[in-house]
Amino acid sequence: MTTLEDYLEKNADRIDRMINRYFGGVHGDLFRASAHLLLAGGKRLRPAVFMLAADAVKRGSSDDLLPAALALELTHNFTLIHDDIMDEDASRRGVPTVHTVWGEPTAILAGDVLYAKAFEFICLSDAADISKVRATTMLARTCTEICEGQSMDIAFETRRDVSEAEYLDMVSKKTGALYGASAAIGGILAGANPIQADALYQFGVNSGIAFQIQDDLIDLYASSEKSGKDQASDIREGKQTLIAIKAREKGLDLSSYRRKLTGAEIADVITLLEDAGIMDEIRAIAVGRAAMAKKALSVLPDSEEKRLLGEIADFFIDRSF
Amino acid sequence: MTTLEDYLEKNADRIDRMINRYFGGVHGDLFRASAHLLLAGGKRLRPAVFMLAADAVKRGSSDDLLPAALALELTHNFTLIHDDIMDEDASRRGVPTVHTVWGEPTAILAGDVLYAKAFEFICLSDAADISKVRATTMLARTCTEICEGQSMDIAFETRRDVSEAEYLDMVSKKTGALYGASAAIGGILAGANPIQADALYQFGVNSGIAFQIQDDLIDLYASSEKSGKDQASDIREGKQTLIAIKAREKGLDLSSYRRKLTGAEIADVITLLEDAGIMDEIRAIAVGRAAMAKKALSVLPDSEEKRLLGEIADFFIDRSF
Repeated sequence: MTTLEDYLEKNADRIDRMINRYFGGVHGDLFRASAHLLLAGGKRLRPAVFMLAADAVKRGSSDDLLPAALALELTHNFTLIHDDIMDEDASRRGVPTVHTVWGEPTAILAGDVLYAKAFEFICLSDAADISKVRATTMLARTCTEICEGQSMDIAFETRRDVSEAEYLDMVSKKTGALYGASAAIGGILAGANPIQADALYQFGVNSGIAFQIQDDLIDLYASSEKSGKDQASDIREGKQTLIAIKAREKGLDLSSYRRKLTGAEIADVITLLEDAGIMDEIRAIAVGRAAMAKKALSVLPDSEEKRLLGEIADFFIDRSF
Repeated sequence: MTTLEDYLEKNADRIDRMINRYFGGVHGDLFRASAHLLLAGGKRLRPAVFMLAADAVKRGSSDDLLPAALALELTHNFTLIHDDIMDEDASRRGVPTVHTVWGEPTAILAGDVLYAKAFEFICLSDAADISKVRATTMLARTCTEICEGQSMDIAFETRRDVSEAEYLDMVSKKTGALYGASAAIGGILAGANPIQADALYQFGVNSGIAFQIQDDLIDLYASSEKSGKDQASDIREGKQTLIAIKAREKGLDLSSYRRKLTGAEIADVITLLEDAGIMDEIRAIAVGRAAMAKKALSVLPDSEEKRLLGEIADFFIDRSF
């Protein structure tokens, strides 16, 4: 029985090899900028969800679909390059962001190139034409949703009244949609029927929402040595995460913590939030989404890959960085 | 017999109606920003080339392909939004550019939304799945080429040694490729065989190159009242157009004209360039490209639409603004 850890490692190796083949030796600023973040590594979680979904629908089908699995990683990377410009972030995955190295114009174009390549790679996979057309349509709609999610996220920065429903809508678009598309497109290209494809989409969206909520928890709990990011940066920046929203709803004022915090102060905030029952509520929401994700899988026949998909949903809410 | 003028007007009306239907009543900053330039008008030349190519391959087929014709206009508009950010342009088509109104982050996302919609609309057309897959692949590769062309154009700004071959390569990617794709995708979705599709691509690329060379001539010759743009702005900015390249090759130094020019000074430059035979050479290159475009059409059976395509190539080099 393969463990999820082994599967993810083997899958990442396979995707990394393909990335190296296609993007490892490119020439010129534009293509090197496109390849920059891709070559900086990553867990390749979206391709893993894609491959498992394909094999859960039809065992052994994923081998013919590798280019499409890569397409999901390319889509993810195009959004990272453009988001980093918008958010003015200077580093990611331990390397400087694309616009920091090559400037904004080339970074915009580098994202645009990966965007195009994503659609090209969907069509490169060895699947039925009708499935590729469905997959293309789903990827296109997903990209629109991701843009909507990012647009909402930007708009939230200047608001202090974001509701839980609005937050979940934003996260479902910004993070959930691409996990939904990863699972559904994997299934569709493997020949899934509409019920299976829809179930896989639900699996992915809910897993993605759980993933993002866990990200917010990690920001608060994980030391910077562990996560590689500033601890409690969301609270310092007054970001509208589920933690901030729940705190506000309970009348807790976190605004005095919108500044550089010491370790002791972070511990104080955590105690404050835990005592108000907020952390338990948020964990329950994440656990609920992971459960919804796993429940959606019930329309699929039992298989090793279905089991691993379920474990991915659990992994998304158990990981500590 | 339909005149080209009548055809273009009728076609633009049809595309405008579809744009109004899909983008006229959108809500929220992101979608209004996406619709902004689309709703500001335009000649809809790429959809016209698409529709004529489809009908030249199979009479009457274009009616089922309108969404895909719109896809080419969406692609064009996505590149305009992103280019305007890179070039820091403040107005286009008589309206402020997207980033000027909504800011850069929303403008990047607005372009990304149109990019996604282009692929979605290709798949929405009523054509064979295998044709849609080919069309999607071609659109994706074309988008990569457009990015390359824009990247070259940016790089040329800081160079003074661009060759004619480099210029033609840049223009072929930045402008030619999308006209090539417009013609070829129209043909492919109408059921063109590979020889016809390739011929249509050649028609479009060469027409597009001729179009761009004519654009450079218009910049020099057309008064700002006529063109709505600054006359001779390319020379003032020291842009590496075919005019500047040819002048340099002939030992003519235009660098003293890199400043605000009076009408009399512009007339002097024109006389200088004409006396050196440069304008004749450039016109000959444009005429040659239009001829190559028309020659490519010879593999198609004679039809009203084939005639109009030929007239489009001529129109591209005859227009005075």
